[in-house]
Amino acid sequence: MHLLIAISNRDCKKLVNTLQTYLPDVEISLWPHCRNLHTVEFVVAWLAPEQMWQQLPNLKAVSSFGAGVDSINLDLLADDVVVTRIVDDALADDMAEYVLTHILAQKLKLKEYFSKQQAQLWQPKRAHKFNHVVFLGFGQLGQHCAKRLLANKLVVSAFSQSPKQFTDVTCVHSQEGLTNILSKADYLVCLLPLTAHTENIIDKALLTQLPEHGVVINVARGKHVVEEDLIWALDNNVIRAATLDVFRQEPLPKEHPFWSHDAITVTPHCAALSSIANVAKQIADNVQLLDKGLELNHQVDRTKGY
Amino acid sequence: MHLLIAISNRDCKKLVNTLQTYLPDVEISLWPHCRNLHTVEFVVAWLAPEQMWQQLPNLKAVSSFGAGVDSINLDLLADDVVVTRIVDDALADDMAEYVLTHILAQKLKLKEYFSKQQAQLWQPKRAHKFNHVVFLGFGQLGQHCAKRLLANKLVVSAFSQSPKQFTDVTCVHSQEGLTNILSKADYLVCLLPLTAHTENIIDKALLTQLPEHGVVINVARGKHVVEEDLIWALDNNVIRAATLDVFRQEPLPKEHPFWSHDAITVTPHCAALSSIANVAKQIADNVQLLDKGLELNHQVDRTKGY
Repeated sequence: MHLLIAISNRDCKKLVNTLQTYLPDVEISLWPHCRNLHTVEFVVAWLAPEQMWQQLPNLKAVSSFGAGVDSINLDLLADDVVVTRIVDDALADDMAEYVLTHILAQKLKLKEYFSKQQAQLWQPKRAHKFNHVVFLGFGQLGQHCAKRLLANKLVVSAFSQSPKQFTDVTCVHSQEGLTNILSKADYLVCLLPLTAHTENIIDKALLTQLPEHGVVINVARGKHVVEEDLIWALDNNVIRAATLDVFRQEPLPKEHPFWSHDAITVTPHCAALSSIANVAKQIADNVQLLDKGLELNHQVDRTKGY
Repeated sequence: MHLLIAISNRDCKKLVNTLQTYLPDVEISLWPHCRNLHTVEFVVAWLAPEQMWQQLPNLKAVSSFGAGVDSINLDLLADDVVVTRIVDDALADDMAEYVLTHILAQKLKLKEYFSKQQAQLWQPKRAHKFNHVVFLGFGQLGQHCAKRLLANKLVVSAFSQSPKQFTDVTCVHSQEGLTNILSKADYLVCLLPLTAHTENIIDKALLTQLPEHGVVINVARGKHVVEEDLIWALDNNVIRAATLDVFRQEPLPKEHPFWSHDAITVTPHCAALSSIANVAKQIADNVQLLDKGLELNHQVDRTKGY
């Protein structure tokens, strides 16, 4: 078995070492330092160069290095290549804690108080009473977050492409259902997979359906948000604030207007940082399953893209 | 029945109007605009001038305007005067939400990220894993907070003057027990009443018992903290950070070093802002009970001071 790691913008030494420990008999190469591309059967990919895929005639499976597979152009893979993603409970816990913390930070006006502290301003204000959270996307991560929010007496609704049922959560999947819950979204949390259908979903048309005190929290992908529409909505009091952990370009460029916008909280894609140990274990398991001719874990429906 | 309101530094118009609605037959005066001090039977007090008390020969009961009675010099009251305080579930909810939010803010490094945003710095870091919260003081407010923290999978211990029992909380009341839990306090939350025994309790001797990554959260009274000891502990990496909602002098003076300290989060005594409607209802109930010669609600043990 020959495993190729093709991950851009990241030092992969620890990942390779950990994988080699789990898989002592597997040949592990690191793109582009790879001689026998024709023997590669399994690839771990994140923003891999597109010209790489046509050089892998023996490819059988691709694992994304993250929870989403949007960093892989699925159209470039042969039809029989299996695509998997990382599903990590520790990651889901971190995501739930980030979402809860930033909802509470918006509710209790933490950014305003930090600014007031810098200006030595003593101005006590009541916290907001708003408590209705709407999820865009309600897969494993969204459901994990919802449990945590419900334990904190928040009200939760969720929109997903396919019908879902979840205790104490109002689940909708139609456009009409979405319109209905958006008007009640005190906090809108985006946890959608990035696909052709969901790209640019947070645009002027959606933002104008939120209440004036609405807060957008994006922890999915930067491309879900039309950036100029979000700034327009904040500057015209269409919504109140935004907390953004993901961006169209990362790191967020120095000159980007999000950094200095009073109503925007920027965090550097830190909501759920994967642990190499957990990710390596999942990849190693799938490599071994492939080697034995068994079904792989956490497969993605390539027609849906998630 | 004659009721006197003696509250410093606050516009009491709304309180007087609300009380008058509840108590149409009661004479309500506002210190110092009061002619017949000798007929006053009930006082609502907050930082009332000390010379006032000796002018009230007919005084039967005093209600604090807050959860603590430390703003009243109990030594100046005749022995048979009943002292009561405000016990407000809405206030306790707000306090629990403040404590949870600021623990999570410290855990997820929100202040650091706000500063990094201002400096346009993209530096993702893992959140702290610390999850053990120790309460100093475990009365109604502390217990309400503990429930909320337990629901968020935090580990809780508590120190109080008298023995307490509480599901899933390690309760101690001896000095030895306190020493034991302080060494494990990732977050130390002060919710003590302010008495001669608890004033200056957070000093060098206590702070040096905390772990190096310890965070002090004071939501009780400013006088619980020896300010120079806290700054010494932060500047010498004895502890990591502090979140302070209360101060020896409020508003916190412009020139105070807390405002600009990187490791201190200052909020303007906003953790639990009492609602006039709730407070007025409790006071009115007690005025009516006194009028009927019945036992008053939420009485304070004057020998303990809480």
